Amino acid sequence: MGEYEHLLVEHEAETVTITMNRPARRNSLSEEHLAELLAAFRAAGESDATGVVLAGAGPVFSAGHDFGDVAARDLTGVRQLLRLCTDVMQTIQSVPQVVLARVHGLATAAGCQLVASCDLAVAAESAGFALPGGKGGWFCHTPAVPVARAVGRKRLMELALTGDPIDAATALDWGLVNRVVPDAELDTAVAALLERATRGSRASKALGKQTLYAQLDRPEADAYAIALEVMAAASQLPGAREGMAAFLEKRKPDWPD
Amino acid sequence: MGEYEHLLVEHEAETVTITMNRPARRNSLSEEHLAELLAAFRAAGESDATGVVLAGAGPVFSAGHDFGDVAARDLTGVRQLLRLCTDVMQTIQSVPQVVLARVHGLATAAGCQLVASCDLAVAAESAGFALPGGKGGWFCHTPAVPVARAVGRKRLMELALTGDPIDAATALDWGLVNRVVPDAELDTAVAALLERATRGSRASKALGKQTLYAQLDRPEADAYAIALEVMAAASQLPGAREGMAAFLEKRKPDWPD
Amino acid sequence: MGEYEHLLVEHEAETVTITMNRPARRNSLSEEHLAELLAAFRAAGESDATGVVLAGAGPVFSAGHDFGDVAARDLTGVRQLLRLCTDVMQTIQSVPQVVLARVHGLATAAGCQLVASCDLAVAAESAGFALPGGKGGWFCHTPAVPVARAVGRKRLMELALTGDPIDAATALDWGLVNRVVPDAELDTAVAALLERATRGSRASKALGKQTLYAQLDRPEADAYAIALEVMAAASQLPGAREGMAAFLEKRKPDWPD
Repeated sequence: MGEYEHLLVEHEAETVTITMNRPARRNSLSEEHLAELLAAFRAAGESDATGVVLAGAGPVFSAGHDFGDVAARDLTGVRQLLRLCTDVMQTIQSVPQVVLARVHGLATAAGCQLVASCDLAVAAESAGFALPGGKGGWFCHTPAVPVARAVGRKRLMELALTGDPIDAATALDWGLVNRVVPDAELDTAVAALLERATRGSRASKALGKQTLYAQLDRPEADAYAIALEVMAAASQLPGAREGMAAFLEKRKPDWPD
Repeated sequence: MGEYEHLLVEHEAETVTITMNRPARRNSLSEEHLAELLAAFRAAGESDATGVVLAGAGPVFSAGHDFGDVAARDLTGVRQLLRLCTDVMQTIQSVPQVVLARVHGLATAAGCQLVASCDLAVAAESAGFALPGGKGGWFCHTPAVPVARAVGRKRLMELALTGDPIDAATALDWGLVNRVVPDAELDTAVAALLERATRGSRASKALGKQTLYAQLDRPEADAYAIALEVMAAASQLPGAREGMAAFLEKRKPDWPD
Repeated sequence: MGEYEHLLVEHEAETVTITMNRPARRNSLSEEHLAELLAAFRAAGESDATGVVLAGAGPVFSAGHDFGDVAARDLTGVRQLLRLCTDVMQTIQSVPQVVLARVHGLATAAGCQLVASCDLAVAAESAGFALPGGKGGWFCHTPAVPVARAVGRKRLMELALTGDPIDAATALDWGLVNRVVPDAELDTAVAALLERATRGSRASKALGKQTLYAQLDRPEADAYAIALEVMAAASQLPGAREGMAAFLEKRKPDWPD
């Protein structure tokens, strides 16, 4: 899966696991780290895996941007860094695989944004989530984009304005993560949810995931205009044909992809 | 209320109850079934009823599209079916009455979409909700449109990607339904909520409901541009005039419509 | 802080407290009352305060529009009143300060809209929230705009169609308020949350708050287009520079604004 300095990337069975592996730097997202994440997600996207797990090594999931990397940059340099960071977030949503965040410890700023940007998230009970930029002088403008779309407005305001962390139970209650489990059961829960989420026709599910992101946050009539055309076309694809035939013939489907 | 093959339609007092009545087919939404639903909602919309209840006869609420009806269709044929299905969903939101889903058993795929599309929903404790297309080869693209707008993004992803059902308590927690009650109390709870939701001026409430859907899912300034003009105009209608006069004169209003 | 007939305005330390002070009129929002609110928020916005608390004196927070003021108006007159009311709501979101609603008793119609429009809200256990227009002849079209954006669709429909109040615990569960505390602890909780929410660089936080509202309720790519450019530019401002320098030098920041 390529040579990475900041990441561990494993491809086992149908799952690619991308582990941010700079524990001494709290997995902070320097330009080099982000460039590797982008490359790793693109490579996973082109692989035959059905699922991708994003994890962090060491005490925290990710501390977000590396101020040591940001502080020296001028406007053009910061813009380039944020463009790269946004590319990572948007690539997570555009790859055909189901992407699941495995969260332990703190997920802060762009680290919290990674959790919000993954399709699904499973957190250990000890995990925490924060958008601390508002108290630190550089507001979490871009992390707030996907977080707002998971937790709603008043809760976004609380996270972004106070900078205080919420615990895993609160993140579950607010819809930022899908599961919270005892720390010792994190890997089992990640594998179990990913297995449920990757069943079926790979091509059908990829189209489904990508179309969901296309239709969200639009007036409902606009969303239907997108979803209806895609769903009509999708009915003619091999996955849908096989799924319906198997259902009608009461047999197990043999997915063509 | 017309002649229907797939539905039972009753009009009692101020409520039209539309019951999907193909229990042997699990109330699946064939083209004929959808055409009758569209006709029944349009007829209810033109009636003097103040509320519409959508229910299902038999063990489930509705199993969604009928694969037997879909599998044989080409692109044009499926597109026509989905256009009809979307028309049903949008008609539910455009009729002047309050529309309430009475949900027992499973509401699956386009059946779950019906629940999300109704203005309000009351579920029996035994009810379940699923978007199973993602595991079945034909992703629930259009059902995801109103479900996303009720439950939020991470929960939508879980429903759509896993295909697993959620129970009624989870649906309540996520905002997909408004009430969950013991199965034996379902009809009582439906009637009670509908009575609360249909009080007041019929014309005022119709305009209110229709304008809510017009302003949702837009930037807030766009939503205000719609809501402000409608509300100003609405202040001059007989219902508003009577409501304010009655309030100021400390008497019961005599609604003009 | 100016001369007001309907309000009490106090500026203590870094907080401006605007108290609606017409208890005999249940703090209803006549044109004169709204004009004073607009003036008071504009004055607070131009002050050096970091936070604004909006409160109500007497038994309720605010009963919304004053039917005595509305009933006599023609279309042009009502439109002007609603334009003014909307200006108040939008000014709350555009001032640089963090605005926190301190809610006790009922917050009804445009009173509930005020709660939804403030950045944050802390409620006493005895508080209640309602959109009663739907049962009263004049639907809560504009109050529904920010309430919808806090609580989600099915819950909005229930509030707007039934007109029934929800209690403080439900408002917390639905995301309409950030904290619920025993009535006797309301002021302490307001001060505590505001203190957390106003830490850091004043200019950075103002830009953050204002950009949050600009990016909400848009397709995610559009939201990123806004947030990325602002965040890149913000990195060059004195607050961000000082925050990063202090972090890297392991010292307390000395905010330049």
